Amino acid sequence: MGKFVFPNTKDLNRMTASGRPLIFVTNDDGVQAAGIAALIKLATEFGDVVAVAPNESYSGMSHSITMHRPLFVSAVTCEPGLEVYSCTGTPVDCVKIGFDEIFKDRIPDLVLSGINHGSNANISVIYSGTMGAATEAALYGIPSIGFSLTDHSPAADFTASVHYAREIIAQVLAMPAERLAGLCLNVNIPDIPLAEIKGIKVCRQTKGNWREDFVHRTDPHNRDYYWMSGKFYNFEHEAEDSDEWALTHGYVAVVPVQMDLTDYSRIETLREHIGR
Amino acid sequence: MGKFVFPNTKDLNRMTASGRPLIFVTNDDGVQAAGIAALIKLATEFGDVVAVAPNESYSGMSHSITMHRPLFVSAVTCEPGLEVYSCTGTPVDCVKIGFDEIFKDRIPDLVLSGINHGSNANISVIYSGTMGAATEAALYGIPSIGFSLTDHSPAADFTASVHYAREIIAQVLAMPAERLAGLCLNVNIPDIPLAEIKGIKVCRQTKGNWREDFVHRTDPHNRDYYWMSGKFYNFEHEAEDSDEWALTHGYVAVVPVQMDLTDYSRIETLREHIGR
Repeated sequence: MGKFVFPNTKDLNRMTASGRPLIFVTNDDGVQAAGIAALIKLATEFGDVVAVAPNESYSGMSHSITMHRPLFVSAVTCEPGLEVYSCTGTPVDCVKIGFDEIFKDRIPDLVLSGINHGSNANISVIYSGTMGAATEAALYGIPSIGFSLTDHSPAADFTASVHYAREIIAQVLAMPAERLAGLCLNVNIPDIPLAEIKGIKVCRQTKGNWREDFVHRTDPHNRDYYWMSGKFYNFEHEAEDSDEWALTHGYVAVVPVQMDLTDYSRIETLREHIGR
Repeated sequence: MGKFVFPNTKDLNRMTASGRPLIFVTNDDGVQAAGIAALIKLATEFGDVVAVAPNESYSGMSHSITMHRPLFVSAVTCEPGLEVYSCTGTPVDCVKIGFDEIFKDRIPDLVLSGINHGSNANISVIYSGTMGAATEAALYGIPSIGFSLTDHSPAADFTASVHYAREIIAQVLAMPAERLAGLCLNVNIPDIPLAEIKGIKVCRQTKGNWREDFVHRTDPHNRDYYWMSGKFYNFEHEAEDSDEWALTHGYVAVVPVQMDLTDYSRIETLREHIGR
Protein backbone atom coordinates (compact mmCIF):
# COMPACT_ATOMS: atom_id res chain seq x y z
CA MET A 1 0.00 0.00 0.00
CA GLY A 2 1.17 3.53 -0.83
CA LYS A 3 2.96 5.44 1.86
CA PHE A 4 0.75 8.52 1.51
CA VAL A 5 -1.54 9.08 4.49
CA PHE A 6 -5.04 9.92 3.27
CA PRO A 7 -6.33 13.05 4.99
CA ASN A 8 -9.49 13.33 7.01
CA THR A 9 -11.46 16.47 6.24
CA LYS A 10 -10.21 17.96 9.53
CA ASP A 11 -6.62 17.59 8.27
CA LEU A 12 -7.23 19.76 5.23
CA ASN A 13 -6.07 23.35 5.06
CA ARG A 14 -3.73 23.06 8.05
CA MET A 15 -0.37 24.74 8.28
CA THR A 16 2.94 22.86 7.91
CA ALA A 17 5.65 22.73 10.60
CA SER A 18 7.06 25.87 8.99
CA GLY A 19 3.76 27.58 9.76
CA ARG A 20 2.90 27.87 6.07
CA PRO A 21 0.64 25.76 3.84
CA LEU A 22 2.30 22.96 1.88
CA ILE A 23 1.59 23.29 -1.84
CA PHE A 24 2.26 20.67 -4.52
CA VAL A 25 2.77 21.91 -8.09
CA THR A 26 2.84 19.96 -11.34
CA ASN A 27 2.00 20.41 -15.04
CA ASP A 28 1.97 18.61 -18.38
CA ASP A 29 4.15 20.91 -20.50
CA GLY A 30 7.24 19.76 -18.62
CA VAL A 31 9.38 21.07 -15.77
CA GLN A 32 11.14 23.54 -18.10
CA ALA A 33 7.97 25.33 -19.26
CA ALA A 34 7.40 29.03 -18.57
CA GLY A 35 3.91 28.27 -17.23
CA ILE A 36 5.07 26.08 -14.33
CA ALA A 37 7.86 28.54 -13.50
CA ALA A 38 5.20 31.25 -13.11
CA LEU A 39 3.00 28.96 -11.01
CA ILE A 40 5.83 27.82 -8.71
CA LYS A 41 6.85 31.45 -8.12
CA LEU A 42 3.24 32.32 -7.28
CA ALA A 43 2.84 29.28 -5.01
CA THR A 44 5.85 30.33 -2.88
CA GLU A 45 3.87 33.47 -1.95
CA PHE A 46 1.38 31.18 -0.19
CA GLY A 47 3.46 28.39 1.32
CA ASP A 48 6.21 25.82 1.12
CA VAL A 49 6.31 24.31 -2.34
CA VAL A 50 7.14 20.84 -3.65
CA ALA A 51 6.94 20.52 -7.45
CA VAL A 52 7.19 17.27 -9.41
CA ALA A 53 6.75 17.70 -13.15
CA PRO A 54 7.44 15.68 -16.30
CA ASN A 55 10.94 15.93 -17.78
CA GLU A 56 9.41 16.69 -21.20
CA SER A 57 6.04 17.70 -22.66
CA TYR A 58 3.21 15.32 -21.80
CA SER A 59 0.54 17.46 -23.39
CA GLY A 60 -2.63 15.56 -24.37
CA MET A 61 -1.77 12.69 -21.98
CA SER A 62 -5.11 12.86 -20.17
CA HIS A 63 -5.24 10.63 -17.07
CA SER A 64 -2.62 8.17 -18.36
CA ILE A 65 -0.29 6.27 -16.03
CA THR A 66 2.97 4.38 -16.63
CA MET A 67 2.74 0.76 -15.58
CA HIS A 68 5.10 -1.06 -17.94
CA ARG A 69 8.36 0.79 -17.44
CA PRO A 70 10.19 2.27 -14.42
CA LEU A 71 10.23 5.98 -13.60
CA PHE A 72 13.25 8.11 -12.75
CA VAL A 73 13.13 11.20 -10.55
CA SER A 74 15.81 13.94 -10.43
CA ALA A 75 16.05 16.85 -8.01
CA VAL A 76 16.19 20.18 -9.89
CA THR A 77 16.01 22.61 -6.96
CA CYS A 78 16.35 21.95 -3.22
CA GLU A 79 16.05 25.13 -1.17
CA PRO A 80 14.33 25.75 2.17
CA GLY A 81 10.64 25.90 1.31
CA LEU A 82 11.12 24.99 -2.37
CA GLU A 83 11.82 21.55 -3.81
CA VAL A 84 11.50 20.91 -7.57
CA TYR A 85 11.80 17.43 -9.11
CA SER A 86 11.78 16.22 -12.71
CA CYS A 87 10.12 12.85 -13.38
CA THR A 88 10.18 10.66 -16.51
CA GLY A 89 6.44 9.91 -16.19
CA THR A 90 3.07 11.43 -17.04
CA PRO A 91 1.41 14.22 -15.03
CA VAL A 92 -0.66 11.64 -13.11
CA ASP A 93 2.53 9.64 -12.40
CA CYS A 94 4.05 12.86 -11.00
CA VAL A 95 1.17 13.24 -8.55
CA LYS A 96 1.32 9.59 -7.47
CA ILE A 97 5.10 9.52 -7.04
CA GLY A 98 5.04 12.94 -5.39
CA PHE A 99 2.45 11.88 -2.84
CA ASP A 100 3.68 8.34 -2.19
CA GLU A 101 7.46 8.66 -2.47
CA ILE A 102 8.34 12.32 -1.93
CA PHE A 103 5.71 13.48 0.56
CA LYS A 104 5.28 10.16 2.37
CA ASP A 105 3.62 11.25 5.63
CA ARG A 106 3.37 14.96 4.75
CA ILE A 107 -0.07 16.03 3.53
CA PRO A 108 -0.25 18.90 1.05
CA ASP A 109 -2.90 21.56 1.60
CA LEU A 110 -3.38 22.29 -2.08
CA VAL A 111 -2.32 20.96 -5.48
CA LEU A 112 -1.79 23.33 -8.42
CA SER A 113 -1.35 22.16 -12.01
CA GLY A 114 -0.21 24.34 -14.91
CA ILE A 115 -0.16 27.08 -15.89
CA ASN A 116 -0.90 25.24 -19.12
CA HIS A 117 0.15 26.71 -22.45
CA GLY A 118 -3.25 26.36 -24.18
CA SER A 119 -6.92 26.07 -23.23
CA ASN A 120 -8.32 23.15 -21.26
CA ALA A 121 -11.86 24.45 -21.34
CA ASN A 122 -14.81 22.53 -22.81
CA ILE A 123 -14.38 18.81 -23.63
CA SER A 124 -10.60 19.44 -23.77
CA VAL A 125 -10.64 18.71 -20.03
CA ILE A 126 -10.76 14.98 -20.81
CA TYR A 127 -7.65 15.06 -23.08
CA SER A 128 -5.67 17.32 -20.77
CA GLY A 129 -2.65 16.13 -18.79
CA THR A 130 -2.89 19.31 -16.70
CA MET A 131 -6.37 18.33 -15.59
CA GLY A 132 -5.42 14.64 -15.34
CA ALA A 133 -2.97 15.63 -12.61
CA ALA A 134 -5.48 17.94 -10.89
CA THR A 135 -8.23 15.32 -10.82
CA GLU A 136 -5.78 12.68 -9.55
CA ALA A 137 -4.90 14.91 -6.61
CA ALA A 138 -8.58 15.36 -5.81
CA LEU A 139 -8.96 11.55 -5.78
CA TYR A 140 -6.36 11.57 -2.98
CA GLY A 141 -8.67 13.93 -1.11
CA ILE A 142 -6.53 17.05 -1.67
CA PRO A 143 -8.16 20.19 -3.14
CA SER A 144 -6.67 20.96 -6.54
CA ILE A 145 -6.74 23.64 -9.20
CA GLY A 146 -5.65 23.32 -12.84
CA PHE A 147 -4.78 26.64 -14.51
CA SER A 148 -4.64 27.07 -18.29
CA LEU A 149 -4.08 30.11 -20.49
CA THR A 150 -5.75 30.07 -23.91
CA ASP A 151 -2.42 30.66 -25.69
CA HIS A 152 -0.35 27.67 -26.88
CA SER A 153 2.82 29.70 -27.41
CA PRO A 154 5.90 28.64 -25.39
CA ALA A 155 6.49 32.40 -24.86
CA ALA A 156 2.91 33.09 -23.71
CA ASP A 157 2.44 36.07 -21.35
CA PHE A 158 1.26 34.78 -17.95
CA THR A 159 0.76 38.21 -16.30
CA ALA A 160 -3.04 38.05 -16.25
CA SER A 161 -3.01 34.31 -15.45
CA VAL A 162 -0.83 34.86 -12.37
CA HIS A 163 -3.04 37.76 -11.24
CA TYR A 164 -6.20 35.66 -11.32
CA ALA A 165 -4.49 32.48 -10.08
CA ARG A 166 -3.35 34.46 -7.01
CA GLU A 167 -6.93 35.58 -6.35
CA ILE A 168 -8.40 32.08 -6.79
CA ILE A 169 -5.72 30.34 -4.68
CA ALA A 170 -6.36 32.82 -1.85
CA GLN A 171 -10.11 32.21 -2.09
CA VAL A 172 -9.69 28.42 -2.07
CA LEU A 173 -7.27 28.47 0.90
CA ALA A 174 -9.87 30.54 2.77
CA MET A 175 -12.72 28.08 2.13
CA PRO A 176 -13.98 26.02 5.07
CA ALA A 177 -12.38 22.54 5.25
CA GLU A 178 -15.68 20.70 4.63
CA ARG A 179 -15.93 22.37 1.22
CA LEU A 180 -12.35 21.44 0.24
CA ALA A 181 -12.53 17.63 0.31
CA GLY A 182 -12.36 16.41 -3.28
CA LEU A 183 -12.60 19.93 -4.72
CA CYS A 184 -11.09 20.16 -8.21
CA LEU A 185 -11.28 23.33 -10.30
CA ASN A 186 -10.61 23.71 -14.02
CA VAL A 187 -9.59 27.36 -14.40
CA ASN A 188 -9.08 28.82 -17.87
CA ILE A 189 -7.84 32.35 -18.45
CA PRO A 190 -8.55 34.20 -21.71
CA ASP A 191 -5.53 35.37 -23.70
CA ILE A 192 -6.28 39.10 -23.40
CA PRO A 193 -4.56 41.87 -21.41
CA LEU A 194 -5.24 41.89 -17.67
CA ALA A 195 -7.09 45.21 -17.86
CA GLU A 196 -9.59 43.75 -20.35
CA ILE A 197 -10.56 40.73 -18.20
CA LYS A 198 -14.01 41.34 -16.75
CA GLY A 199 -13.73 39.01 -13.73
CA ILE A 200 -14.29 35.39 -12.75
CA LYS A 201 -17.28 33.24 -13.71
CA VAL A 202 -18.12 29.84 -12.17
CA CYS A 203 -19.47 27.79 -15.09
CA ARG A 204 -20.05 24.32 -16.49
CA GLN A 205 -18.23 22.39 -19.22
CA THR A 206 -19.36 23.52 -22.69
CA LYS A 207 -21.07 20.88 -24.86
CA GLY A 208 -19.16 20.26 -28.09
CA ASN A 209 -16.30 18.21 -29.43
CA TRP A 210 -13.03 18.22 -31.29
CA ARG A 211 -12.93 17.45 -35.01
CA GLU A 212 -9.63 16.29 -36.39
CA ASP A 213 -8.05 17.15 -39.69
CA PHE A 214 -5.13 14.79 -40.14
CA VAL A 215 -2.29 16.05 -42.32
CA HIS A 216 -1.57 13.07 -44.60
CA ARG A 217 1.89 13.11 -46.20
CA THR A 218 4.76 10.82 -47.22
CA ASP A 219 7.95 10.74 -45.12
CA PRO A 220 11.53 10.75 -46.54
CA HIS A 221 11.47 6.93 -46.45
CA ASN A 222 8.34 6.83 -48.61
CA ARG A 223 6.00 5.83 -45.79
CA ASP A 224 2.58 7.46 -45.45
CA TYR A 225 2.03 9.25 -42.18
CA TYR A 226 -0.83 11.12 -40.49
CA TRP A 227 -0.34 14.08 -38.17
CA MET A 228 -3.21 15.18 -35.97
CA SER A 229 -4.57 18.68 -35.86
CA GLY A 230 -8.05 19.72 -34.92
CA LYS A 231 -10.56 22.35 -33.95
CA PHE A 232 -13.18 22.55 -31.21
CA TYR A 233 -16.80 22.73 -32.36
CA ASN A 234 -19.04 24.48 -29.85
CA PHE A 235 -22.59 23.06 -29.82
CA GLU A 236 -23.96 25.90 -27.67
CA HIS A 237 -22.40 29.28 -28.49
CA GLU A 238 -25.16 31.17 -26.67
CA ALA A 239 -25.04 29.25 -23.36
CA GLU A 240 -24.07 31.94 -20.84
CA ASP A 241 -23.30 29.37 -18.12
CA SER A 242 -20.72 27.52 -20.29
CA ASP A 243 -16.96 27.94 -19.93
CA GLU A 244 -16.49 28.81 -23.63
CA TRP A 245 -19.03 31.65 -23.34
CA ALA A 246 -17.14 33.03 -20.33
CA LEU A 247 -13.78 32.91 -22.14
CA THR A 248 -15.02 34.46 -25.37
CA HIS A 249 -16.72 37.22 -23.37
CA GLY A 250 -13.58 38.14 -21.43
CA TYR A 251 -14.05 36.21 -18.17
CA VAL A 252 -11.84 33.75 -16.33
CA ALA A 253 -13.80 30.46 -16.43
CA VAL A 254 -13.90 28.24 -13.31
CA VAL A 255 -15.51 24.79 -13.69
CA PRO A 256 -15.71 22.39 -10.73
CA VAL A 257 -14.80 18.89 -11.95
CA GLN A 258 -15.60 15.41 -10.63
CA MET A 259 -14.71 11.89 -11.74
CA ASP A 260 -17.87 9.80 -11.43
CA LEU A 261 -18.49 9.15 -15.14
CA THR A 262 -21.75 7.25 -14.59
CA ASP A 263 -24.50 8.50 -16.91
CA TYR A 264 -27.26 8.27 -14.31
CA SER A 265 -29.84 9.52 -16.83
CA ARG A 266 -29.55 6.27 -18.81
CA ILE A 267 -29.68 3.71 -16.00
CA GLU A 268 -33.46 3.16 -16.02
CA THR A 269 -33.82 2.88 -19.82
CA LEU A 270 -30.86 0.50 -19.98
CA ARG A 271 -32.53 -1.73 -17.41
CA GLU A 272 -35.40 -2.11 -19.90
CA HIS A 273 -33.01 -3.31 -22.61
CA ILE A 274 -30.03 -5.01 -21.01
CA GLY A 275 -30.38 -6.17 -17.43
CA ARG A 276 -31.98 -5.27 -14.15
CA MET B 1 -12.18 19.83 -40.70
CA GLY B 2 -12.23 16.05 -40.32
CA LYS B 3 -13.64 14.03 -43.16
CA PHE B 4 -15.98 12.04 -40.95
CA VAL B 5 -19.65 12.87 -41.48
CA PHE B 6 -21.37 13.27 -38.11
CA PRO B 7 -24.54 11.20 -37.98
CA ASN B 8 -28.01 12.47 -37.28
CA THR B 9 -29.96 10.27 -34.90
CA LYS B 10 -31.94 8.94 -37.86
CA ASP B 11 -28.68 7.71 -39.43
CA LEU B 12 -27.85 5.49 -36.46
CA ASN B 13 -28.40 1.76 -36.55
CA ARG B 14 -28.82 1.60 -40.33
CA MET B 15 -27.51 -1.17 -42.49
CA THR B 16 -24.44 -0.80 -44.76
CA ALA B 17 -24.49 -1.30 -48.54
CA SER B 18 -23.74 -4.96 -47.82
CA GLY B 19 -27.00 -5.11 -45.90
CA ARG B 20 -25.17 -5.62 -42.59
CA PRO B 21 -24.28 -3.19 -39.80
CA LEU B 22 -20.82 -1.59 -39.95
CA ILE B 23 -18.89 -2.23 -36.74
CA PHE B 24 -15.65 -0.53 -35.68
CA VAL B 25 -13.39 -2.42 -33.25
CA THR B 26 -10.41 -1.19 -31.26
CA ASN B 27 -8.62 -1.87 -27.94
CA ASP B 28 -5.68 -0.75 -25.80
CA ASP B 29 -3.77 -4.03 -25.38
CA GLY B 30 -2.64 -3.88 -29.01
CA VAL B 31 -3.71 -5.44 -32.29
CA GLN B 32 -1.98 -8.74 -31.41
CA ALA B 33 -3.90 -9.32 -28.15
CA ALA B 34 -6.16 -12.34 -27.69
CA GLY B 35 -8.96 -10.11 -26.40
CA ILE B 36 -9.35 -8.10 -29.63
CA ALA B 37 -9.10 -11.28 -31.73
CA ALA B 38 -12.08 -12.66 -29.79
CA LEU B 39 -14.02 -9.39 -30.17
CA ILE B 40 -13.34 -9.07 -33.92
CA LYS B 41 -14.50 -12.67 -34.46
CA LEU B 42 -17.66 -11.95 -32.49
CA ALA B 43 -18.29 -8.66 -34.34
CA THR B 44 -18.23 -10.43 -37.72
CA GLU B 45 -21.32 -12.38 -36.57
CA PHE B 46 -23.19 -9.06 -36.54
CA GLY B 47 -21.82 -7.08 -39.45
CA ASP B 48 -18.96 -5.83 -41.60
CA VAL B 49 -15.97 -5.04 -39.40
CA VAL B 50 -13.22 -2.43 -39.57
CA ALA B 51 -10.66 -2.68 -36.74
CA VAL B 52 -7.93 -0.12 -36.02
CA ALA B 53 -5.86 -0.95 -32.95
CA PRO B 54 -2.52 0.14 -31.46
CA ASN B 55 0.61 -1.68 -32.72
CA GLU B 56 1.64 -2.33 -29.10
CA SER B 57 0.11 -2.19 -25.61
CA TYR B 58 -1.32 1.22 -24.70
CA SER B 59 -2.76 0.04 -21.41
CA GLY B 60 -3.37 2.84 -18.89
CA MET B 61 -3.34 5.48 -21.63
CA SER B 62 -6.73 6.91 -20.67
CA HIS B 63 -8.04 9.49 -23.18
CA SER B 64 -4.56 10.50 -24.40
CA ILE B 65 -3.93 11.70 -27.95
CA THR B 66 -0.76 12.07 -30.01
CA MET B 67 -0.21 15.62 -31.20
CA HIS B 68 3.57 15.98 -31.38
CA ARG B 69 4.58 13.12 -33.65
CA PRO B 70 3.14 11.56 -36.83
CA LEU B 71 1.16 8.30 -36.85
CA PHE B 72 1.66 5.33 -39.16
CA VAL B 73 -1.09 2.92 -40.17
CA SER B 74 -0.53 -0.58 -41.62
CA ALA B 75 -3.13 -2.95 -43.05
CA VAL B 76 -3.06 -6.33 -41.26
CA THR B 77 -6.10 -8.00 -42.86
CA CYS B 78 -8.14 -6.93 -45.90
CA GLU B 79 -10.95 -9.36 -46.68
CA PRO B 80 -14.53 -8.74 -47.83
CA GLY B 81 -16.32 -7.61 -44.68
CA LEU B 82 -13.19 -7.55 -42.51
CA GLU B 83 -10.43 -4.92 -42.50
CA VAL B 84 -7.86 -4.80 -39.67
CA TYR B 85 -5.29 -2.01 -39.31
CA SER B 86 -2.41 -1.47 -36.90
CA CYS B 87 -1.70 2.14 -35.82
CA THR B 88 1.30 3.60 -33.96
CA GLY B 89 -0.99 5.77 -31.80
CA THR B 90 -3.12 5.56 -28.67
CA PRO B 91 -6.60 3.98 -28.55
CA VAL B 92 -8.21 7.43 -28.96
CA ASP B 93 -5.90 8.13 -31.93
CA CYS B 94 -7.13 4.84 -33.45
CA VAL B 95 -10.75 5.99 -33.22
CA LYS B 96 -9.99 9.42 -34.68
CA ILE B 97 -7.85 8.11 -37.56
CA GLY B 98 -10.32 5.28 -38.17
CA PHE B 99 -13.27 7.65 -38.42
CA ASP B 100 -11.57 10.50 -40.29
CA GLU B 101 -9.12 8.70 -42.58
CA ILE B 102 -10.34 5.12 -42.99
CA PHE B 103 -14.13 5.47 -42.82
CA LYS B 104 -14.34 8.95 -44.37
CA ASP B 105 -18.00 9.13 -45.43
CA ARG B 106 -19.01 5.71 -44.03
CA ILE B 107 -20.76 5.87 -40.66
CA PRO B 108 -20.31 2.94 -38.28
CA ASP B 109 -23.37 1.63 -36.46
CA LEU B 110 -21.47 0.57 -33.38
CA VAL B 111 -18.00 0.82 -31.86
CA LEU B 112 -16.60 -2.01 -29.72
CA SER B 113 -13.44 -1.69 -27.60
CA GLY B 114 -11.61 -4.58 -25.93
CA ILE B 115 -11.97 -7.24 -24.84
CA ASN B 116 -9.56 -5.80 -22.29
CA HIS B 117 -7.22 -8.07 -20.36
CA GLY B 118 -8.08 -6.72 -16.88
CA SER B 119 -10.90 -4.89 -15.13
CA ASN B 120 -11.97 -1.39 -16.08
CA ALA B 121 -14.68 -1.22 -13.42
CA ASN B 122 -14.78 1.42 -10.67
CA ILE B 123 -12.52 4.52 -10.97
CA SER B 124 -10.29 2.46 -13.32
CA VAL B 125 -12.55 3.75 -16.11
CA ILE B 126 -10.67 7.06 -16.07
CA TYR B 127 -7.21 5.44 -16.51
CA SER B 128 -8.39 2.98 -19.16
CA GLY B 129 -7.36 3.20 -22.80
CA THR B 130 -10.15 0.74 -23.64
CA MET B 131 -12.72 3.15 -22.24
CA GLY B 132 -10.86 6.18 -23.66
CA ALA B 133 -11.54 4.76 -27.13
CA ALA B 134 -15.17 3.91 -26.31
CA THR B 135 -15.94 7.37 -24.91
CA GLU B 136 -14.23 9.03 -27.89
CA ALA B 137 -16.52 7.13 -30.27
CA ALA B 138 -19.55 8.27 -28.28
CA LEU B 139 -18.35 11.88 -28.66
CA TYR B 140 -18.60 11.31 -32.43
CA GLY B 141 -22.24 10.34 -31.84
CA ILE B 142 -21.71 6.60 -32.38
CA PRO B 143 -22.94 4.15 -29.73
CA SER B 144 -20.02 2.33 -28.15
CA ILE B 145 -19.30 -0.51 -25.76
CA GLY B 146 -16.05 -1.23 -23.93
CA PHE B 147 -15.65 -4.83 -22.76
CA SER B 148 -13.18 -5.89 -20.06
CA LEU B 149 -12.51 -9.22 -18.37
CA THR B 150 -11.24 -9.09 -14.79
CA ASP B 151 -8.17 -11.18 -15.67
CA HIS B 152 -4.90 -9.46 -16.69
CA SER B 153 -3.33 -12.62 -18.11
CA PRO B 154 -2.35 -12.51 -21.83
CA ALA B 155 -3.80 -16.07 -21.99
CA ALA B 156 -7.11 -15.14 -20.30
CA ASP B 157 -10.14 -17.29 -21.19
CA PHE B 158 -12.66 -15.12 -23.06
CA THR B 159 -15.41 -17.77 -23.37
CA ALA B 160 -17.78 -16.16 -20.87
CA SER B 161 -16.87 -12.65 -22.07
CA VAL B 162 -17.78 -13.50 -25.65
CA HIS B 163 -21.06 -15.10 -24.54
CA TYR B 164 -22.18 -11.98 -22.68
CA ALA B 165 -20.71 -9.55 -25.22
CA ARG B 166 -22.82 -11.31 -27.88
CA GLU B 167 -25.95 -10.83 -25.77
CA ILE B 168 -25.23 -7.16 -25.03
CA ILE B 169 -24.30 -6.27 -28.63
CA ALA B 170 -27.57 -7.83 -29.85
CA GLN B 171 -29.54 -5.87 -27.24
CA VAL B 172 -27.83 -2.57 -28.15
CA LEU B 173 -28.33 -3.08 -31.91
CA ALA B 174 -32.02 -3.68 -31.19
CA MET B 175 -32.45 -0.45 -29.20
CA PRO B 176 -34.41 2.40 -30.81
CA ALA B 177 -32.19 4.96 -32.57
CA GLU B 178 -33.14 7.80 -30.21
CA ARG B 179 -31.64 5.85 -27.30
CA LEU B 180 -28.37 5.16 -29.15
CA ALA B 181 -27.04 8.70 -29.68
CA GLY B 182 -24.04 9.18 -27.39
CA LEU B 183 -24.59 5.83 -25.64
CA CYS B 184 -21.38 4.48 -24.09
CA LEU B 185 -21.31 1.34 -21.96
CA ASN B 186 -18.52 0.15 -19.66
CA VAL B 187 -19.02 -3.62 -19.49
CA ASN B 188 -16.93 -5.70 -17.09
CA ILE B 189 -17.12 -9.48 -16.96
CA PRO B 190 -16.08 -11.41 -13.84
CA ASP B 191 -13.31 -13.96 -14.25
CA ILE B 192 -15.41 -17.02 -13.37
CA PRO B 193 -16.74 -19.88 -15.52
CA LEU B 194 -19.70 -19.02 -17.77
CA ALA B 195 -22.02 -21.36 -15.84
CA GLU B 196 -21.34 -19.48 -12.60
CA ILE B 197 -22.22 -16.03 -13.97
CA LYS B 198 -25.63 -15.01 -12.61
CA GLY B 199 -26.58 -12.52 -15.33
CA ILE B 200 -26.21 -8.85 -16.25
CA LYS B 201 -26.60 -5.90 -13.87
CA VAL B 202 -26.87 -2.25 -14.97
CA CYS B 203 -24.96 -0.32 -12.28
CA ARG B 204 -23.05 2.83 -11.42
CA GLN B 205 -19.32 3.44 -10.99
CA THR B 206 -18.11 2.31 -7.54
CA LYS B 207 -16.71 5.02 -5.26
CA GLY B 208 -13.10 4.33 -4.33
CA ASN B 209 -9.60 4.89 -5.60
CA TRP B 210 -6.28 3.33 -6.45
CA ARG B 211 -3.42 3.39 -3.97
CA GLU B 212 0.05 2.96 -5.38
CA ASP B 213 2.93 1.04 -3.92
CA PHE B 214 5.99 1.99 -5.95
CA VAL B 215 8.76 -0.59 -6.09
CA HIS B 216 11.91 1.46 -5.40
CA ARG B 217 15.14 -0.17 -6.59
CA THR B 218 18.52 0.65 -8.14
CA ASP B 219 19.15 -0.16 -11.82
CA PRO B 220 22.36 -1.79 -13.21
CA HIS B 221 23.73 1.72 -13.84
CA ASN B 222 23.26 2.69 -10.19
CA ARG B 223 20.26 4.95 -10.82
CA ASP B 224 17.26 4.83 -8.49
CA TYR B 225 14.00 3.93 -10.18
CA TYR B 226 10.36 3.61 -9.18
CA TRP B 227 7.94 1.11 -10.71
CA MET B 228 4.24 1.58 -10.18
CA SER B 229 1.95 -1.08 -8.80
CA GLY B 230 -1.26 -0.52 -6.96
CA LYS B 231 -4.52 -1.81 -5.56
CA PHE B 232 -8.10 -0.54 -5.73
CA TYR B 233 -9.67 0.50 -2.43
CA ASN B 234 -13.44 0.18 -2.45
CA PHE B 235 -15.16 2.83 -0.31
CA GLU B 236 -18.57 1.12 -0.48
CA HIS B 237 -18.35 -2.69 -0.40
CA GLU B 238 -22.04 -3.05 0.45
CA ALA B 239 -23.45 -0.82 -2.32
CA GLU B 240 -25.58 -3.23 -4.37
CA ASP B 241 -25.93 -0.76 -7.25
CA SER B 242 -22.14 -0.42 -7.71
CA ASP B 243 -20.17 -2.20 -10.45
CA GLU B 244 -17.73 -3.76 -7.97
CA TRP B 245 -20.61 -5.32 -6.02
CA ALA B 246 -21.97 -6.81 -9.24
CA LEU B 247 -18.60 -8.28 -10.22
CA THR B 248 -17.80 -9.75 -6.80
CA HIS B 249 -21.29 -11.28 -6.66
CA GLY B 250 -20.97 -13.02 -10.03
CA TYR B 251 -22.71 -10.56 -12.37
CA VAL B 252 -21.61 -8.88 -15.58
CA ALA B 253 -21.51 -5.15 -14.70
CA VAL B 254 -22.82 -2.59 -17.24
CA VAL B 255 -22.26 1.10 -16.43
CA PRO B 256 -23.45 3.84 -18.82
CA VAL B 257 -20.72 6.47 -19.11
CA GLN B 258 -20.74 10.15 -20.07
CA MET B 259 -18.08 12.83 -20.43
CA ASP B 260 -19.48 16.00 -18.85
CA LEU B 261 -17.11 16.23 -15.88
CA THR B 262 -18.81 19.30 -14.37
CA ASP B 263 -19.45 18.85 -10.65
CA TYR B 264 -22.86 20.56 -10.70
CA SER B 265 -23.27 20.01 -6.94
CA ARG B 266 -20.49 22.54 -6.22
CA ILE B 267 -21.48 25.37 -8.56
CA GLU B 268 -23.64 27.30 -6.12
CA THR B 269 -21.20 27.10 -3.17
CA LEU B 270 -18.31 28.10 -5.44
CA ARG B 271 -20.23 31.17 -6.52
CA GLU B 272 -20.22 32.23 -2.85
CA HIS B 273 -16.42 31.97 -2.69
CA ILE B 274 -14.97 32.61 -6.12
CA GLY B 275 -17.18 34.38 -8.65
CA ARG B 276 -20.72 34.69 -9.84
